[in-house]
Amino acid sequence: MGLSDVVAGPRNEEGIAAAIGILKQRFGENLQTGDSHRREHSHTMSYMPEQLPDAVVFPKDSGEIQEIVRICADHRVPIVPFGTGTSLEGHLNAPRGGISVDINRMNRILAVNAEDLDCTVEPGVTREDLNVHLRDTGLFFPIDPGANASIGGMAATRASGTNAVRYGTMRENVLSVTAVTADGREISTGGRARKSAAGYDLTRLFVGSEGTLGILTSITLRLFGIPQSILSGVCPFPTVDDAVNAVIMTIQLGIPIARIELLDATAVRIINAHSGLENPETPVLFVEFHGTEDSVREQSASFDEIASEFGGGPFKSASKVEDRNRLWKARHNAFHAFSAFRPGASSLSTDVCVPISRLAECIRETREDSERSGIFAPIIGHVGDGNFHSLVFFEADQPDDVRRMEAFVARLNDRAIAMDGTCTGEHGIGQRKQSALRSELGPALDLMHSIKAALDPDEIMNPGKIFTPPLS
Amino acid sequence: MGLSDVVAGPRNEEGIAAAIGILKQRFGENLQTGDSHRREHSHTMSYMPEQLPDAVVFPKDSGEIQEIVRICADHRVPIVPFGTGTSLEGHLNAPRGGISVDINRMNRILAVNAEDLDCTVEPGVTREDLNVHLRDTGLFFPIDPGANASIGGMAATRASGTNAVRYGTMRENVLSVTAVTADGREISTGGRARKSAAGYDLTRLFVGSEGTLGILTSITLRLFGIPQSILSGVCPFPTVDDAVNAVIMTIQLGIPIARIELLDATAVRIINAHSGLENPETPVLFVEFHGTEDSVREQSASFDEIASEFGGGPFKSASKVEDRNRLWKARHNAFHAFSAFRPGASSLSTDVCVPISRLAECIRETREDSERSGIFAPIIGHVGDGNFHSLVFFEADQPDDVRRMEAFVARLNDRAIAMDGTCTGEHGIGQRKQSALRSELGPALDLMHSIKAALDPDEIMNPGKIFTPPLS
Repeated sequence: MGLSDVVAGPRNEEGIAAAIGILKQRFGENLQTGDSHRREHSHTMSYMPEQLPDAVVFPKDSGEIQEIVRICADHRVPIVPFGTGTSLEGHLNAPRGGISVDINRMNRILAVNAEDLDCTVEPGVTREDLNVHLRDTGLFFPIDPGANASIGGMAATRASGTNAVRYGTMRENVLSVTAVTADGREISTGGRARKSAAGYDLTRLFVGSEGTLGILTSITLRLFGIPQSILSGVCPFPTVDDAVNAVIMTIQLGIPIARIELLDATAVRIINAHSGLENPETPVLFVEFHGTEDSVREQSASFDEIASEFGGGPFKSASKVEDRNRLWKARHNAFHAFSAFRPGASSLSTDVCVPISRLAECIRETREDSERSGIFAPIIGHVGDGNFHSLVFFEADQPDDVRRMEAFVARLNDRAIAMDGTCTGEHGIGQRKQSALRSELGPALDLMHSIKAALDPDEIMNPGKIFTPPLS
Repeated sequence: MGLSDVVAGPRNEEGIAAAIGILKQRFGENLQTGDSHRREHSHTMSYMPEQLPDAVVFPKDSGEIQEIVRICADHRVPIVPFGTGTSLEGHLNAPRGGISVDINRMNRILAVNAEDLDCTVEPGVTREDLNVHLRDTGLFFPIDPGANASIGGMAATRASGTNAVRYGTMRENVLSVTAVTADGREISTGGRARKSAAGYDLTRLFVGSEGTLGILTSITLRLFGIPQSILSGVCPFPTVDDAVNAVIMTIQLGIPIARIELLDATAVRIINAHSGLENPETPVLFVEFHGTEDSVREQSASFDEIASEFGGGPFKSASKVEDRNRLWKARHNAFHAFSAFRPGASSLSTDVCVPISRLAECIRETREDSERSGIFAPIIGHVGDGNFHSLVFFEADQPDDVRRMEAFVARLNDRAIAMDGTCTGEHGIGQRKQSALRSELGPALDLMHSIKAALDPDEIMNPGKIFTPPLS
C-alpha cells in the first residue's frame, strides 16, 4: 500500500477533448467542466492527492448512461462513476483524467415489492432516502456504512457497516443489478428470485467491482421487516481484550446480535467530546438487539452475562428511540469527530478483517505496534465480523511521518493477511491497497485482471482502481 | 431447453490419445479407461443420453490435479470434474470426450475452526461425512440438497435444498475456495474473513461455475451451531393454493423457519407408499423450526395460527429424533420414490424459482398446464425460497411424448422468467437449460462467455456446460 500506488496514468488528450465536445453538445448544462465541479468530483475523503476528471456529466437515466459510455468508448476516454463522494480509497480520482459520471439525478425508487421483501432503485438513491421511502411499509434496508452513501456506490464497493453482523453486507443483500458495460450495452444480471443457479454469478461480480466493469443503472435489494423490538446500549470493559473476548463469545454462542461495535478508550473520549455524550472513557461495546420483545430480552440477558464474565458492565440500555438515535449518530460521526480532533493532521482509516478467533490478537498487536511506533491510531470496529478500523493520524507534509504511517499500515495489512484475513473488510481496494491485494491474493489477482481485460479491453471503466496495469 | 441442447461436439482424437498415454504412465492404476468406469462417470441421473469420457483419473491431491490439468491443457483435452454423480443436468457428460477427474480420493477435512464457525475441506468430502466429523463440535453444515453430494460438486452447482430458507445456499456459505484453473495454476480466492471487499468476488464466481472455470481443490465453509431445539412436523392443507399462501405469510412475517417444503397430494401418496408413511393424502407442508426451546415453541405456534387461517392443520409435530429423521428421509427419497413409482418411464425434474408473491400463481398455472397437457408431473418444492420442482414423467422412446414434455418444460421456464424468476433455483444449467438461460439473461450471457473465453481460451474445462459455443 501507499501513496506510491496512486500514480497518474497516461492521458489521451485528443480523445478526451473530442468526447467532451460531443458530450457538451448532447448534454448542455448537464455537462460541466468548471474547476469547482471537477474538484468536487475527485477524491475528498482522505489524504490522497486529488486527481481531477476533465468534465462531470449528470445523466438522468440509463439511456443517457449508455450514450455517455458509447461516446467515451469511441474515444477511449476514462469514465469514473460518482455517487455521494464518500469513498475512502480514492475510487473517485481520475488518474488518467476523463469523465466523472454523477448519478445523483438517477434517484428514483423504481419498485417496492413489499410482499417479496425486495425493491429496485436507481443508483443515486441514498440509503437514508430509501429508508424514509420505506417507512410506511414496515420494511427497512439494513446496510449502514455510516455515511449516507448512494446505493450504487455501496454496491460498487461491497459496503457493509454496523449491522452486517446480523444482516450481511451488500454481497448478501443485492439480488441483481442492471449495468452498462464498457461496450455501451445494458445487461441485467438476473431477476428477483431468492435463489438462482443460472450460470456465473454476475450479480456478485458487479458488487464490489468498484466501477471497473461498468456503471450500475439499477439495483434490486433485499429488505427486512422492521423488528418488533429494538434495544441498544453501551457496555464498558476494563480492557480492549476483555471487550473483544466478550464479542467472540457472543458470536460463538450464536446470539443473533444486530450490532456490536468496539471503541477503544481514546475513541470514546473523542466521540464523547464531539457529540456531548458521557460514556465511560474505557473501551466500550455499542450493541443492539433486534427481535420480538421476548427474544430481545433474552438476547440482552445472555449478552449481559457474557460481559460480566469478562469484567464488563454494567450494560446501560437505551430503548427510547431518541437515545438510540443519539448513540448511533455519535458512532457514525466518529470519522468527523476524529478529523475535528486533530484539525491540522491528515488521517486514514485502515480496514482489516480477520477470523474472529484472531481478532483479540490482531487488535492487541496493532495497538502495541502503534504505541511502539509513536502513531496516534484509535480503534473503532465492526468487531462482530472481525473487522476494525485504526484511524491513523499523521502529518502529510512530513515525509518521515508519511513513511512511518505507511509502514505501520503495511504491517497491519500483512498481520491480517497472515491471520487468514483480508486487508479490506468493506472499504475496497481503490488506489491505495493494490500492493496489499497482491500480497493477499497472489495469482488470483491475475484472474481478476483477465476478467477486466475481457470485459473492458480499452480500460475505460474507472482505470487505476483495484489494479494499475501492467501487472507484474 | 431440450434434448436438442445436448449435442456432442468435435473430438480432438489425437490430443485425447496423447494425454491418456501420458496420464497412464503417470497415474498407473489410478487412470482407468474401461467401459464400466467410463459409464459410471458419465451422466446417470435422468433421461439424458450418456456421453462417456475417454478415461477416468483419480487424483489424490491438488498437486496431482495440477499435473492432470497441465497435461490436458498441453493437448487441448476436455476435463470433466466428477464428485458423486448426482447432478441432474448432465454436468458429468463428456460431449467432446476427454478425461473425467474423479475427486473422491480427495476426501480429507483439512481444518475445523470451531471458534470461527468455519472449516476447510477437500472437494470429495460429502456433506454427510462432514456432519459426522463435526458431531462432537456442536456445529453442523446445514446445506442439504437431498443427495449425499460432495462439497466440491455442491459448490460447483451452487446447490441448496431444504433448509436454504434459513441458512442460505452455497452462495452464502462458501467463504473461499482454492481451484486449479485451465492453465494449471492453483489460485486461492481469499481467506476466512467473514467480510471482504478485496477486489472481484472470485469466490462467488467459482461457486456455480459448474466446473467450467477450473477444478475446486478445497472449499472453506461456514458452519452453524446445532440448534438447542429442533421441531419438525407435517401440516395438511385443503389445496395447494392454501398451502402456498400459508408459506407466503410465514415468510412475510419473518418467522425464521428452518425448512418449509411443499408436496402436492400425488407426491404425498407416492412417498407414503415408498417410505411406509401415513401422511394425509392432501397437499402438505413439511416444516422444521430451529432455535431455543422458547423460540421454537413461539415459531411453531405462529405457524399453526397461519396454517389454520388458510384452512390447514392440524400441525402434527415430531420432536423425537427418529421420527424427524424418518420424515426428512422420506422427503429426500422423493426422487427415488418417484422413479420407482413408474419404473418404465423416464423422468426429469424442473427447477424454477420465482419471487414468493408469484409462487401460488406459478404453481397453479403449472398444475393447470400439466393437467391440460396430460402430463404426469407431481410437485415438490423448497417453497420458502419460491423454488419448486415438477417431476415430469414421459416415455423417452416416444418422440411425441418427448416433444410434449419439452414444450411443457419450456412453458414452465418461460412462465417463471416472466415472473421475474429463474429457470433454475439450484440444479444449474448444465446441458439442458442453455436456451432457457439465453431467454432469461439475454446479453448477460455474452458477458459470461467472455469470462469463460478469458479464463479458459481452449475451452477444456467441462465444455458444453452452461453454454455451447459458438454463441449466437
